Amino acid sequence: MTLHTVIYDTDPGIDDAIALVFQALHPEIELAGITSVFGNASIATTTRNALYLAQRFAPGVPVARGAAAPLQCMAPEPLGWIHGDDGLGNIGLPEVDHAPLDSRPAHQFIAETVRARPGEITLLAVGPLTNLALALADDPGIAERVKEVVIMGGAFGIGGVLGNVTPAAEANIHCDPHAADLVFAAPWKVSIVGLDVTHETVMTTAYLASIRDRGGDAGRFVWDISRHYERFHSESDQATGIFAHDYSAAAYLVAPHLYETRGGPVRVVTEGIANGLTIQKPFGMQVDAPDWEGRPSCEVCVGVDAPGVLDLFDRMLCDQNA
Amino acid sequence: MTLHTVIYDTDPGIDDAIALVFQALHPEIELAGITSVFGNASIATTTRNALYLAQRFAPGVPVARGAAAPLQCMAPEPLGWIHGDDGLGNIGLPEVDHAPLDSRPAHQFIAETVRARPGEITLLAVGPLTNLALALADDPGIAERVKEVVIMGGAFGIGGVLGNVTPAAEANIHCDPHAADLVFAAPWKVSIVGLDVTHETVMTTAYLASIRDRGGDAGRFVWDISRHYERFHSESDQATGIFAHDYSAAAYLVAPHLYETRGGPVRVVTEGIANGLTIQKPFGMQVDAPDWEGRPSCEVCVGVDAPGVLDLFDRMLCDQNA
Repeated sequence: MTLHTVIYDTDPGIDDAIALVFQALHPEIELAGITSVFGNASIATTTRNALYLAQRFAPGVPVARGAAAPLQCMAPEPLGWIHGDDGLGNIGLPEVDHAPLDSRPAHQFIAETVRARPGEITLLAVGPLTNLALALADDPGIAERVKEVVIMGGAFGIGGVLGNVTPAAEANIHCDPHAADLVFAAPWKVSIVGLDVTHETVMTTAYLASIRDRGGDAGRFVWDISRHYERFHSESDQATGIFAHDYSAAAYLVAPHLYETRGGPVRVVTEGIANGLTIQKPFGMQVDAPDWEGRPSCEVCVGVDAPGVLDLFDRMLCDQNA
Repeated sequence: MTLHTVIYDTDPGIDDAIALVFQALHPEIELAGITSVFGNASIATTTRNALYLAQRFAPGVPVARGAAAPLQCMAPEPLGWIHGDDGLGNIGLPEVDHAPLDSRPAHQFIAETVRARPGEITLLAVGPLTNLALALADDPGIAERVKEVVIMGGAFGIGGVLGNVTPAAEANIHCDPHAADLVFAAPWKVSIVGLDVTHETVMTTAYLASIRDRGGDAGRFVWDISRHYERFHSESDQATGIFAHDYSAAAYLVAPHLYETRGGPVRVVTEGIANGLTIQKPFGMQVDAPDWEGRPSCEVCVGVDAPGVLDLFDRMLCDQNA
């Protein structure tokens, strides 16, 4: 039974691919489209990967190519040492057929799909928010026609850090802080799943091995692509296993009860040493904050039932093979 | 037995006064001087209050008048609605004798005292850090001659917020972010006691009433001045009672085992919507951070045994009267 009709805006990316596998399997999610964006790798690579993932796990779902660079700043270097040079862990992916790429750029695909299905579409965005900002710029009226927006990005310090690419910024927001600040300003329902909860949600080696052994083709794929990602995590002493960054946004969409959230408008710093930092003015905070005034409230994830989130993924991949 | 020879740099301020009472009573603390700074009230008011506190609780301790305004920005409005128009809760303080004011400005008093007692002086700074920055500018050599620096200021998000005067900034740092950034750059041992732990350390009405009833003259004074401060906290829905902001820095000095700290260099944002924000690059964080490179590590308080901190204050005020 479809409860969530999703456009998945993504820069695959290993954890992006893991989140796609989950969405493709989840009975409550209908994928209305996949839109690529630069980020974890170049737009050529992330678009190729989006096509590959669609063909393998979500056949028939349209894929549209998105932004190659941020709104106002330079495109960052691809994160080859994290996601592999091919963006999916260097496992030797086959060639993909580029023919089915949607003819429209991602932001137009998003706007037209939202217009065609008012009140139905959820934007699940797990890369730089450039496509969403471009869609808003072209057609501000989509904001009130989107059902909800769930993003993976940002950090609010609650988990101990404000960033993972600088001391103040998480990668997705840092890639295009201007776009993020526009997305958080629009009059739609936005939920933000940031490092505060994704760093709490670790898929350990043992967990991934169990998924590999019990999750069929999808489980083996998750294991294969995550070997490179896991080495990055262990070599940088971050975790024994991998952070479930992008999957967490998909988990929040279908199981928000596994998260504790806090309401209040969010701004993004777009200059200086804190460039890319997300700052919320929580409801009830009694301070003078003209820069936050008049902006809509966002729900920021501040707590997570991590075992519940991990169990949800396990069940989705493995129960079908039980 | 003196273990800590302290210059108390302060903008009294109700919680500043509470911290002074504690220091005056603590057997391991010798007050080598009190230096005033603008902040909670104007420099005229905070200096007057520093003199009053010295005469009543620390007779013979020299008081030097400090900075009236931040290094580079405008002086903020005095926080009359928080600390009272007189800075000490509007309890009708008597006139004070201004004669004993040290002839030197605070930053000169600090530098000369440090030079005279190399390796001995602890700077306990609970207001804007302007005096410390001016002392460093005049005489950079003091940094290596100070025993340690403990400041109340900043916030790192761990306690749920990044600030208390803006969504991104704590009051002391926000008053003079340039000064704070200089203080965190100097080669001395700095510990930072911020909102992450002070918001966890609440002196409730019942706690303060017990101090009033058992703490003699000092206990009654703490109760009297905190009535105004408590109303501010309750009317702004922050706490039932008062946050033990400045006292927490004094508690950390004598009982660091009651705190969990995290090492790593700290920068201060000096522009834009995050002006006054403190950002640490924790040890072990593997990100490119040229703006933090080459700066000394600071110890940031990230956890607190709040009952232990409150019990310490209770014992210091009340055991003498038992």
